[in-house]
Amino acid sequence: MTVSPEIEKTMESSSFIRKMFEDGIRLRKILGEDKVYDFSLGNPDLDVPEELKAIIKEVAEDDTKGCHGYMTNAGYPFCREAIGEKISLEQGVRVSGEFVVMASGAAGAMNVLLKAVLVPGDRILVPSPYFSEYTHYVANHGGRLVPVETNPDFSLNLENIRNAFTGNTRGIIINSPNNPTGRIYTEEELIALRSLLYELGKKNGDIPFVIADEPYRDILYDGAVVPSVFKIFEKSVIVSSFAKNLSIPGERIGYVAVNPLCPDGKELAGACGFTTRILGFVNAPAFFQRVIAKGWNVKADYSSYAERCSLLKEVLDSAGIEYFNPQGAFYLFCRVPAKNESSGNCESSQAFCCVLKKYGILAVPGVGFGREGYIRLAFCVSPDTIKNSKESFKMAVEDWKQIKL
Amino acid sequence: MTVSPEIEKTMESSSFIRKMFEDGIRLRKILGEDKVYDFSLGNPDLDVPEELKAIIKEVAEDDTKGCHGYMTNAGYPFCREAIGEKISLEQGVRVSGEFVVMASGAAGAMNVLLKAVLVPGDRILVPSPYFSEYTHYVANHGGRLVPVETNPDFSLNLENIRNAFTGNTRGIIINSPNNPTGRIYTEEELIALRSLLYELGKKNGDIPFVIADEPYRDILYDGAVVPSVFKIFEKSVIVSSFAKNLSIPGERIGYVAVNPLCPDGKELAGACGFTTRILGFVNAPAFFQRVIAKGWNVKADYSSYAERCSLLKEVLDSAGIEYFNPQGAFYLFCRVPAKNESSGNCESSQAFCCVLKKYGILAVPGVGFGREGYIRLAFCVSPDTIKNSKESFKMAVEDWKQIKL
Repeated sequence: MTVSPEIEKTMESSSFIRKMFEDGIRLRKILGEDKVYDFSLGNPDLDVPEELKAIIKEVAEDDTKGCHGYMTNAGYPFCREAIGEKISLEQGVRVSGEFVVMASGAAGAMNVLLKAVLVPGDRILVPSPYFSEYTHYVANHGGRLVPVETNPDFSLNLENIRNAFTGNTRGIIINSPNNPTGRIYTEEELIALRSLLYELGKKNGDIPFVIADEPYRDILYDGAVVPSVFKIFEKSVIVSSFAKNLSIPGERIGYVAVNPLCPDGKELAGACGFTTRILGFVNAPAFFQRVIAKGWNVKADYSSYAERCSLLKEVLDSAGIEYFNPQGAFYLFCRVPAKNESSGNCESSQAFCCVLKKYGILAVPGVGFGREGYIRLAFCVSPDTIKNSKESFKMAVEDWKQIKL
Repeated sequence: MTVSPEIEKTMESSSFIRKMFEDGIRLRKILGEDKVYDFSLGNPDLDVPEELKAIIKEVAEDDTKGCHGYMTNAGYPFCREAIGEKISLEQGVRVSGEFVVMASGAAGAMNVLLKAVLVPGDRILVPSPYFSEYTHYVANHGGRLVPVETNPDFSLNLENIRNAFTGNTRGIIINSPNNPTGRIYTEEELIALRSLLYELGKKNGDIPFVIADEPYRDILYDGAVVPSVFKIFEKSVIVSSFAKNLSIPGERIGYVAVNPLCPDGKELAGACGFTTRILGFVNAPAFFQRVIAKGWNVKADYSSYAERCSLLKEVLDSAGIEYFNPQGAFYLFCRVPAKNESSGNCESSQAFCCVLKKYGILAVPGVGFGREGYIRLAFCVSPDTIKNSKESFKMAVEDWKQIKL
């Protein structure tokens, strides 16, 4: 035996992303680079802001002895203070550096946090559709992710949350703006959620955590605002990164920030420093900690995402594909079009993605986010890719409507 | 409940490192900076080589679009090829980039590998004394680390390995040069180990992995040589980093390299790319992948470690403390001195460390490495710290001999 059977099984079930990637390469060879419209990857395509580029060069010039060495597992104190300042501004709650632990990206932050809080068998709820990697992150530490269906407009369905709640429900992940829908959960929804969690938690003897995953917090449309989770939920934690807002996902720089009002919040931050160490992260990369300590507040211009969002909406409108109007992030979550009556009733997102692929379009089936009948299109691609995809979308939809499945 | 009870318990049992760190701060305040001799930390203190500093600046100047973005989880292909070349030179076995997965340091590499291979309940053996973080790394993925006593000269004791072997023993960690002893396991020892593992593995239907953890491979004394693990064990994997040899531990750049002769070796490398993703590492930091792709072969001058090793030996000789003569790394593993007959028989490494502390000397008790009756002194400190500690060591030993415990 070489690879563990469980990992083999998990790899198999996660292989659709790899298949899509390989399909993309194959399609490019067959159809030509300019005839492939790849909307599958959530890789921010804005250039790194000039101001941050300058900071990167500045940090590289400073070669003080020890600057690439170990620091406290939780990160450089000056970097943690800087993140505390950022969170204080965003959340309207004063957060000092001792409540912050620097992490290897938001994914690293989520693992560090879950390792610190989960008891094997614990459940973590997540409103669905949801970012499917959460399933792995929770399972890594012996827990189970439990998706909870949202309403048709993707707002929180409190009745479903109530029904999914059990004695060993340890928390709920709030990913806002949401990947894949681009929805922001409103303050009213969150206040109602708070009441519910307190009611259920009190019965249970333990209030569940609210884990806010906010990597898209800065990428907003039409004046949208992301409510403060720290103001609403005492027992809350933010995990986030600079991957999406500053276009540096490969550098793995993120953080865990514990609400200072959280009971035993300092102990939790301490535990996250410890789990950073024992999970093998040890510390977030030193170089980008120094970059971010100076550059956390660098502004980026997201207007081109808004423009491309509009372009893609036009393309979808002309093809007759319906979508949810996103308030943030860079995805359009679209309905699989209805088929003609004679060709049967099929909502399969995978089948629709196959038809799209015939016309050079790569999309992620909604079933990968726990929601059948939808597909996700990432619009962080060139405007030309979007414009040129128009006829292909139209033909694919016509084809889809006719095909008997 | 905030922190999981298991993590709380583990933190408590690992707290001696933190306590030592805090003691150091306290001692510096009481005794003064120059009266504290801190031999507790294995933080490489050589400056980053000039050639690598230049590469860091060069990489920072190149701001090609996407250079801070995602790449394949396993790492940039050019970086994996470079590491393949490095391993080929070291091991005398041709290793291509597809057998290499870039990781967040050796600790990250170890977790990525263990996640890919362990089935809950599996045992991993390790010759003792050993680096105690392995306990956490194995436990993270449902396994159990089983320390196996070595001989008095810290060579492998095959009989002990045979006795520790069970049906679910999945591998053995070979950390050479060893932390804390500085011992290199010889080619003869490893060939004998191979015979034993094949004999036991065949009975078992599955040959155990040899996991070579080699971060100190380049830091050697008196012409010592580290044997090729890949030539001796087909089913072997190297995990390592550039933390110790290039003094960049904070940058978290390491790798997993699978022996190309390992059965299903490509599958294992693929699985490590996958576990990098699901554990939340996602990929090793992009910036230092680009640095290391250019700088993996930069030479550093370790002669000052050898000089400081000699200095510390002189100090220990004069105080009558015996030590193992290290072949690599930067530690001296020393015997707790015998007590005077009238003051009782005590080998407690913690008690001896307490006495040392009274005289301003910080050392790690051997019990933290699974070996009572020893202490570890890291000599990656200034020559002055070593020289000035002489009288304190002498006084501490005299005190220790008298104290009734």
